[in-house]
Amino acid sequence: MRASQKDLENAVNQMKLLKKDPGNEVKLKLYALYKQATEGPCNMPKPGIYDLIRKAKWEAWNTLGNLPKETARQNYVDLVSSLCSSSESSSQGKPGADREQLRYETLVVTSEDGITKIMLNRPSKKNAVNLQMYQEIVLALKAASQDDSTITVLTGNGDYYSSGNDLTNFTNTSPGEIQEKAKNSLILVREFVGCFIDFPKPLIAVVNGPAVGIAVTLLGLFDIVYASDRATFHTPFSRLGLHPEGCSSYTFPKIMGPTKATEMLIFGKKLTAEEACAQGLVTEVFPDRTFQKEVWTRLKAYAKLPSNVLRISKQVIRNREKEKLHSVNVEENSVLQGTVLSDEAVNAVMNFLSKRAKL
Amino acid sequence: MRASQKDLENAVNQMKLLKKDPGNEVKLKLYALYKQATEGPCNMPKPGIYDLIRKAKWEAWNTLGNLPKETARQNYVDLVSSLCSSSESSSQGKPGADREQLRYETLVVTSEDGITKIMLNRPSKKNAVNLQMYQEIVLALKAASQDDSTITVLTGNGDYYSSGNDLTNFTNTSPGEIQEKAKNSLILVREFVGCFIDFPKPLIAVVNGPAVGIAVTLLGLFDIVYASDRATFHTPFSRLGLHPEGCSSYTFPKIMGPTKATEMLIFGKKLTAEEACAQGLVTEVFPDRTFQKEVWTRLKAYAKLPSNVLRISKQVIRNREKEKLHSVNVEENSVLQGTVLSDEAVNAVMNFLSKRAKL
Amino acid sequence: MRASQKDLENAVNQMKLLKKDPGNEVKLKLYALYKQATEGPCNMPKPGIYDLIRKAKWEAWNTLGNLPKETARQNYVDLVSSLCSSSESSSQGKPGADREQLRYETLVVTSEDGITKIMLNRPSKKNAVNLQMYQEIVLALKAASQDDSTITVLTGNGDYYSSGNDLTNFTNTSPGEIQEKAKNSLILVREFVGCFIDFPKPLIAVVNGPAVGIAVTLLGLFDIVYASDRATFHTPFSRLGLHPEGCSSYTFPKIMGPTKATEMLIFGKKLTAEEACAQGLVTEVFPDRTFQKEVWTRLKAYAKLPSNVLRISKQVIRNREKEKLHSVNVEENSVLQGTVLSDEAVNAVMNFLSKRAKL
Repeated sequence: MRASQKDLENAVNQMKLLKKDPGNEVKLKLYALYKQATEGPCNMPKPGIYDLIRKAKWEAWNTLGNLPKETARQNYVDLVSSLCSSSESSSQGKPGADREQLRYETLVVTSEDGITKIMLNRPSKKNAVNLQMYQEIVLALKAASQDDSTITVLTGNGDYYSSGNDLTNFTNTSPGEIQEKAKNSLILVREFVGCFIDFPKPLIAVVNGPAVGIAVTLLGLFDIVYASDRATFHTPFSRLGLHPEGCSSYTFPKIMGPTKATEMLIFGKKLTAEEACAQGLVTEVFPDRTFQKEVWTRLKAYAKLPSNVLRISKQVIRNREKEKLHSVNVEENSVLQGTVLSDEAVNAVMNFLSKRAKL
Repeated sequence: MRASQKDLENAVNQMKLLKKDPGNEVKLKLYALYKQATEGPCNMPKPGIYDLIRKAKWEAWNTLGNLPKETARQNYVDLVSSLCSSSESSSQGKPGADREQLRYETLVVTSEDGITKIMLNRPSKKNAVNLQMYQEIVLALKAASQDDSTITVLTGNGDYYSSGNDLTNFTNTSPGEIQEKAKNSLILVREFVGCFIDFPKPLIAVVNGPAVGIAVTLLGLFDIVYASDRATFHTPFSRLGLHPEGCSSYTFPKIMGPTKATEMLIFGKKLTAEEACAQGLVTEVFPDRTFQKEVWTRLKAYAKLPSNVLRISKQVIRNREKEKLHSVNVEENSVLQGTVLSDEAVNAVMNFLSKRAKL
Repeated sequence: MRASQKDLENAVNQMKLLKKDPGNEVKLKLYALYKQATEGPCNMPKPGIYDLIRKAKWEAWNTLGNLPKETARQNYVDLVSSLCSSSESSSQGKPGADREQLRYETLVVTSEDGITKIMLNRPSKKNAVNLQMYQEIVLALKAASQDDSTITVLTGNGDYYSSGNDLTNFTNTSPGEIQEKAKNSLILVREFVGCFIDFPKPLIAVVNGPAVGIAVTLLGLFDIVYASDRATFHTPFSRLGLHPEGCSSYTFPKIMGPTKATEMLIFGKKLTAEEACAQGLVTEVFPDRTFQKEVWTRLKAYAKLPSNVLRISKQVIRNREKEKLHSVNVEENSVLQGTVLSDEAVNAVMNFLSKRAKL
């Protein structure tokens, strides 16, 4: 029997429960099989010789050559299965910084003082969310929901919080592939949004700079949103032929009323941090100069509150909406599936990319 | 078989699809039959001799004498039917300003730069909405929903946006007739509100001055509301023995929270434009001096966004609420039907009118 | 057949409908039986000799000695029954200030100018809500819903609006009793919140000073909330091991959006009156110096509006939410029942009380 996509996901989750650290060699092998199973043959430029971790990962992946995706998937599942059975009687293992650094390419995930911090880490790309980052955020949220931290924070490294969906996901794609690639991306985005809906602990956005697109729309699913006064909030969907996602078509009118939500979501009005705060999308704005200090001081104090009480209170507030939010997510996603491949949308994205290329 | 009210409405809609302009004579005939079918014998004071268009209309209507409503309705339907069949092979016709001016007595409707603008045009009456205007707005919205404009704007001519329901609708009515007249008015208001709920494109209010009553309550159904700083928002229902309509009993608490909505809707607190903006009823306030210029510049830019994308995004945001809004509309309307004929309500309206008459 | 708790409640309600004042002696007897039936043997410290009313009540209650609760309940029901049958043909009686003063120990209830004012009257305890006050507010709201006033106001006597649930309710309780006492308290709180959900007339909070806990969360069920600029709004649930109640887990996110509601309800952020107003929890803020004068002037004007119209309009706005609010109330209450007896919650309350005792 061939391993299905679902088996692969289960294996990924099993790995996170593994009590004994399997060692770097095995982890590199798992990394390579996962990449091969989900993206095919190694498409990563060879890293420089001093970039040791990336180089080790590149070599592990590149070694797999043209191994078919299905075979890689099966091998991944088998390897995890053997690790699990061999570790069942053991229980040491320490999930340390080293393991985290290895697992995530686009994030830095740390955990201290009762706070798990997920930092988007593509600063040179304004933390644009590529397919890899979507997947890694899903994994990081699933891990954070089970770790012993009290609150979970999402923030960005560098000047931007996040410039949203990385449209260059589609630049090197041939017209023949684009339809399937776009469809798969949308399925991934739907799963990604679902993780925010289901997240069981207080989830806090520390918006260190400009936020665009899905980095904005998702904010309606956070429990607290702190913003630097340098942050802006922009959802230029219509001129790209796109529609609101991240449940924003539901959460934004509830938060700010339909007349403010529509100018933002449909007509692409960009909000300052102060405006976003006045409209309830942002909880509080801080001067950029003292932003990090003030926010983390407060969060550390909040993280000392009883963890279980916070979790239950969040669920009392949020669970009532969960079913509705999941159906909104599915609906928004299927509207996008219906239109994202239209000529208007493809042309709008192509125009956007070619304009950017000229800058 | 006799033509029903529904047949009449269908015929009105068919007229709007007519490709060939039938000429002024036929249009006057249609106008007269429509008035006779819906209002009975000509009740319009004879216009002055220099008011050529109104005079032509008056004469056409007056000519019908005591023709029964049912017969007028049947004749209207038959005439449209003959026009449609005779024009099926033709396709010239240009629906120009002239036709619009003839069709609407209380509105000026224009369409350019991707924007259909519906302007309430009873400035000497502060754009109070009389029965004619209710009907004409319904027609204008139905036409705008099918034309090729990108966005639709409602605004007022003169100092007021609109002073709301024209209570003088009832001044010349004998006590015996008032019950049926009020009931018919309420049915019309329900249909009128339903058109706003169903409107499929971005709908924008340009609130050029004070707004009262139903002109305020309806704002919760618009997608953007721009206001001059001279605008005020006032719903003095309770002292007239009336209750909130226009779905405001549902939309206002959602937009501004119940404690602010109640003081406004029940206790008649009048809001300034700034207050209405802070509470989310208004999207943005502009200085009156530059209001028209700033608003239309922005709207023209918005109207250049892809029409189909805007329409779908509006529907993603709004459709989820449609069924609920229609049921609220029916409920509000039936509460009004139950109370509007109470002694309190009739006395309150009579008091209001007699006070106004003294001013 | 033994009288049930429900029979007792019915008898209490019957008493309020009694047309003939039964006289002070009978009322003292009823008072004593009610206290014995609900709280058991007299636990009130003997009042000083000049505190005539309290002393009369103490004596009446103390006289019952160790009469079992069930017997007291039965006697109460029988006594009311005999009063009702003997007064059926009579109809004088005047429910005056004297009767009110006797009935309420923790409130001052007055009615004039179309306004029934329920004033929390434990100023030395910052108007903390003890079990007695919960019960009396329920009775006062039920009476106000049936009297001929137009609007009903809740306010506090002294510096505080209310410091919330009186945690000293539990100080003199043995560990063996605490479970049942807490459970009964929660049932009472649920009934208490239900009265606010169902209240049929405009209900207005005049927040004269700081509000804490349930005094804050309930505000989402009021129709207007006026606040002195000295008022603050604080819900420190988590550090006491508690969760949001008063339907706030539903009303607060609707009013202010989830990101502001969560920082307040879960993380205990204290709001100023201005902040609470900007977020829609408070309708308007007044300078403390002129607070009482401005608010009562406005309320007296509002109370002149037609009573029946206001009542129906409130119901048009609120009834749509009633079923939902009742289910939220039940849900919040059952979450509290599940956690309020946890070690965390008991320890947190004990810590809080011991810290306060040291001040």
